[in-house]
Amino acid sequence: MTSDQSVTAAILVIGDEILSGRTKDKNIGYIAEYLTAIGVDLKEVRVVPDVGDEIVTALNALRHRYTYVFTTGGIGPTHDDITADSVAKAFGVSIDYDPRAVELLKQRFQGPELNEARMRMTRIPAGADLVTNKVSLAPGFWIGNVIVMAGVPTIMQAMLDEVGPKLKTGRKMLSESVRADLKEGDIGTELGIVALAHPEVSIGSYPFFDDKLGPNTNVVVRARDADKLAAAKAAVEDMLAKVRTKLAAGQETK
Amino acid sequence: MTSDQSVTAAILVIGDEILSGRTKDKNIGYIAEYLTAIGVDLKEVRVVPDVGDEIVTALNALRHRYTYVFTTGGIGPTHDDITADSVAKAFGVSIDYDPRAVELLKQRFQGPELNEARMRMTRIPAGADLVTNKVSLAPGFWIGNVIVMAGVPTIMQAMLDEVGPKLKTGRKMLSESVRADLKEGDIGTELGIVALAHPEVSIGSYPFFDDKLGPNTNVVVRARDADKLAAAKAAVEDMLAKVRTKLAAGQETK
Repeated sequence: MTSDQSVTAAILVIGDEILSGRTKDKNIGYIAEYLTAIGVDLKEVRVVPDVGDEIVTALNALRHRYTYVFTTGGIGPTHDDITADSVAKAFGVSIDYDPRAVELLKQRFQGPELNEARMRMTRIPAGADLVTNKVSLAPGFWIGNVIVMAGVPTIMQAMLDEVGPKLKTGRKMLSESVRADLKEGDIGTELGIVALAHPEVSIGSYPFFDDKLGPNTNVVVRARDADKLAAAKAAVEDMLAKVRTKLAAGQETK
Repeated sequence: MTSDQSVTAAILVIGDEILSGRTKDKNIGYIAEYLTAIGVDLKEVRVVPDVGDEIVTALNALRHRYTYVFTTGGIGPTHDDITADSVAKAFGVSIDYDPRAVELLKQRFQGPELNEARMRMTRIPAGADLVTNKVSLAPGFWIGNVIVMAGVPTIMQAMLDEVGPKLKTGRKMLSESVRADLKEGDIGTELGIVALAHPEVSIGSYPFFDDKLGPNTNVVVRARDADKLAAAKAAVEDMLAKVRTKLAAGQETK
């Protein structure tokens, strides 16, 4: 469902292992790119430890502010997996073994294999829909505007593919990148003037090191309206050409 | 300076490009590992867009709660680099061209090269110390308990090396990893019992896919006290051996 209103989102990454540096997060960048592509604006990310109160506080702050909150991590079979319980607490609902989730797990685990630890993964807050995935059978879930996903990237990605088509989306943010072939410090003032003249277009400047030319800059122009985007891009290109000419003239007179 | 008190930190990542997914953050994991190694506990991370009010709100929330806040991004020469101004606003202090920063930039840029855009990088909030770095000459700064660093990883890393030795640090968190050679769901309940018996030790469980054995698990045991760490690690190893024996016996009787 596409709307003209902007649709916003936050990510809540849950896990001591990210904060200790032991595990390097790979989900934020993936979800960011995914949401941008479908027309959902990611507005904020938080990373919190496996501490119930921290999860509840962050989740309540985010879910009241954005259209969607995506959480990653903490839905496995061990004692430090407390996301489902924390989400239930944040929403003030009960949590229990969910027959639909139990059925899913029974497809892989039989008899003593479906032990207490694995049953922990079937605890789902009351009123939530399951988010299934084809990589592991243990589901995530969707309650209110909060989508709870696994931390393991392959599983998270499968869950995102599952919920993606069901999300409200806004007009897609269109984006064009222009390679400046100039240093960022050479175009800063002029780029600011272009940005002021195109208030509905977001213009960002990203320095990078070019193996041939040395310090270089990508200018990224973003807007929902294709005409406004094109006008801003043309203005950036025109400005860059002028700065290049000016600098080349300066070098000749040296 | 090492203290027995725990020393805490948060990271505030500033930048539209992270939230759009265009740039994949590489700083969170690096800073997390760095802080853990020197005895500073990273407790929270937030990513916010290049929007002044968002930066001010997040910075004020974090700086009153943790020993240190490290920011990355938004201190370059273009119009979207608004971190220094936002930090000044959060602290309620003025901001101006800083003679020390101007001197640094003059080492690289002369005459017309030291233009308005590059001068923007010398704007430093009143009362801040500069954080120099050997990669670029444009400095970060340190004000109160907030350390403001570049977003470009090589520059950020050089700045972190500069401030690292000056940070208060707590007792280092010690860590041991035990490879379970068991699936996470096979050890969840037993691991929870070990965790309850070792309340001053943090025990985490991280599934991974082993090319030879398939689904496998690393159990990570963390504590500041070496004896308590060793005791918990031994308890984990003992538990793992028992579960392996039990599962092997179960398979034989099938």
